[in-house]
Amino acid sequence: MEETKINDLVNEVVNRIKNAESSAEKEEDSKKNKNNKGGELNLNLANEVTEFIGTAMGDTIGLVIANVDPDLRKLMGIDPKYRSIGVFGGRTGAGPQIYAADEAVKASNTEIVKIELPRDTKGGAGHGSLIIFGAEEVSDARRAVQVALEDLERTFGDVYGNDAGHLEFQYTARASKALNAAFGAPEGKAFGITVGAPAGIGVIMADVAVKAATIDVVAYASPSEGTSLTNEVILQFSGDSGAVRQAIVAAREVGLKLLGSLGAKPESSATPYI
Amino acid sequence: MEETKINDLVNEVVNRIKNAESSAEKEEDSKKNKNNKGGELNLNLANEVTEFIGTAMGDTIGLVIANVDPDLRKLMGIDPKYRSIGVFGGRTGAGPQIYAADEAVKASNTEIVKIELPRDTKGGAGHGSLIIFGAEEVSDARRAVQVALEDLERTFGDVYGNDAGHLEFQYTARASKALNAAFGAPEGKAFGITVGAPAGIGVIMADVAVKAATIDVVAYASPSEGTSLTNEVILQFSGDSGAVRQAIVAAREVGLKLLGSLGAKPESSATPYI
Amino acid sequence: MEETKINDLVNEVVNRIKNAESSAEKEEDSKKNKNNKGGELNLNLANEVTEFIGTAMGDTIGLVIANVDPDLRKLMGIDPKYRSIGVFGGRTGAGPQIYAADEAVKASNTEIVKIELPRDTKGGAGHGSLIIFGAEEVSDARRAVQVALEDLERTFGDVYGNDAGHLEFQYTARASKALNAAFGAPEGKAFGITVGAPAGIGVIMADVAVKAATIDVVAYASPSEGTSLTNEVILQFSGDSGAVRQAIVAAREVGLKLLGSLGAKPESSATPYI
Repeated sequence: MEETKINDLVNEVVNRIKNAESSAEKEEDSKKNKNNKGGELNLNLANEVTEFIGTAMGDTIGLVIANVDPDLRKLMGIDPKYRSIGVFGGRTGAGPQIYAADEAVKASNTEIVKIELPRDTKGGAGHGSLIIFGAEEVSDARRAVQVALEDLERTFGDVYGNDAGHLEFQYTARASKALNAAFGAPEGKAFGITVGAPAGIGVIMADVAVKAATIDVVAYASPSEGTSLTNEVILQFSGDSGAVRQAIVAAREVGLKLLGSLGAKPESSATPYI
Repeated sequence: MEETKINDLVNEVVNRIKNAESSAEKEEDSKKNKNNKGGELNLNLANEVTEFIGTAMGDTIGLVIANVDPDLRKLMGIDPKYRSIGVFGGRTGAGPQIYAADEAVKASNTEIVKIELPRDTKGGAGHGSLIIFGAEEVSDARRAVQVALEDLERTFGDVYGNDAGHLEFQYTARASKALNAAFGAPEGKAFGITVGAPAGIGVIMADVAVKAATIDVVAYASPSEGTSLTNEVILQFSGDSGAVRQAIVAAREVGLKLLGSLGAKPESSATPYI
Repeated sequence: MEETKINDLVNEVVNRIKNAESSAEKEEDSKKNKNNKGGELNLNLANEVTEFIGTAMGDTIGLVIANVDPDLRKLMGIDPKYRSIGVFGGRTGAGPQIYAADEAVKASNTEIVKIELPRDTKGGAGHGSLIIFGAEEVSDARRAVQVALEDLERTFGDVYGNDAGHLEFQYTARASKALNAAFGAPEGKAFGITVGAPAGIGVIMADVAVKAATIDVVAYASPSEGTSLTNEVILQFSGDSGAVRQAIVAAREVGLKLLGSLGAKPESSATPYI
């Protein structure tokens, strides 16, 4: 209901603009734009223009632009073949959004065109996120954002926090393109991360994880390398599905105890899935 | 009153220092310092040394150093011709301070010697600011900081926030040196910015802005490029005065609705001016 | 008591891991690991494996890994001769932890192998910290972390804050390896820092400090250079012990007044030591 109202408003603004100024003129200016033949039609269909898809945990918002302005697309460094983009990101969390986006690319005909990680978490110790899906058809962009928003309830399951910091654990049996883009995960293999903040806790968890099982460490990220200056240490690893899980479970047990030493018992605001 | 007390204290400290140690000695050490003939005299005039000018919204403070220590000036990378500097910056806001500084350079015989943008906003998603004005005469530095502080009430007018994020819009009919230094704005032309946080909202507003009017986009800044890792997307554009305004108004209408979808109705803590 | 429970848990996890999977196998994989002859023995001694040492102000945690996993050590860029590491860092404060670590390296047979400074302070304007001590013997790593944790009460003494920002002052009569690694302090000489946030206050304090005494400025750090994008200006200086103190005292007097102009009287949460 609220969603419909927002979409109506967004489209009304965009349509008012389009009535005043022919979109054809603008698009002729840009010779780089190859795939927008259907553009003008879509611009006149409400709900096919700029769509508000929804919101989720972590102040996450999901949006779709059916026909990105060609000049803006160029500035954003997006391949012109992606006429439509899905926009998905929040204030709190990068891992949850990236793992959710990974499911979304598996479930839709889209590509990950950008993953950017601000220093955020609303005053917490970690990242926020901005993920852009590219699609040739707006329906694909829409589907990707819908899947990602829905999956966020799950991927926030193993995020634990208290006043002193946070822990995050993510696991997938089969990494796809978002995890490859964000973490260099080998596609098709099980892939996990352990995140500890303050960073000292992340160091211990990384050591516990590599000792707990035979895993292939893809990267070790710390405040000055591999993070956006966050107070986190992140271990990123692939391997046999059982080993990846075992490493996470061992690290989580230790991490919860250590973070608890600095404050209240760390709680998840959703339901743990690992 | 409070301002007078602070100035008295600051000057008393500096004067006590100067009585104990001849300033002449120190300044002879630095051969790079060309323009401080009147320095010693000023150092003995209370209110001509280091001045507290005032505070304003966003935990912004305005200060003047009449005669910057020559070694420090060198470390700061400031041209020795600027004997005096104005110091102006806050915890919350870069846009408001930069646009206010732009009016200040127009209204005073000063130059912008530095604009630095920390990742701040007191736990929010954006920047803080540190702006240094250079002046040959202390009275000019003082005037610049006074004008900038006074203008901040206006330039915070189109900053809207709620618990989930913030939006910012700025407009000038004629960009000057601060906007050129900070954003690459062409001097003498109308120049506007739209800022959305979380960044996803900024993407949509950027698309709405470029579609709303014929504007020249100067830059598109996002968490990993052109910002200090903030959770913002910033569109920077110049053009015909009416077009720049039209782009801002359209983006603002959409942005307010989108940010409102994540929390309470976004409110300005001052009076909108665009 | 609580500390004992945490250690028991950590060791139980690590031991369970080790029972399931021979540590010998893993260590043969890594030819780079030279100094872990006693490793397997230690792994079976509770309290010799991964130790929780304690917590302190600023959400600081102190931990020891007796025998870092050789693959992880490589990823962390730590010299293989350091079999054991001490891990020490917090959400709030870099200066207090670095000065405390400096005393710790003086008091133990350890080296500083890493100092990383996230953008943190729990939504405040400054840094957090992650400091790694390297040691050939676990007892040395333990001692370093213990000394550092205990010294933190002192080094937080001249950290003053209010809602608008913070000030920090640190002084040592004789800088050692942590101060050299973090700030380039000449070893063996008196070394001080003044930190002001918002950054504008730090500029004024830097100017007051250099005018107050004959000091050798080692560096001037600001939001865009020498900090992790914090809203701070930091002056770093060595020199004659009396001069370093005099510079700090003068800067502190002015800084407290200026920060007080933006909010409540800035208070230290510990006991000033300078």
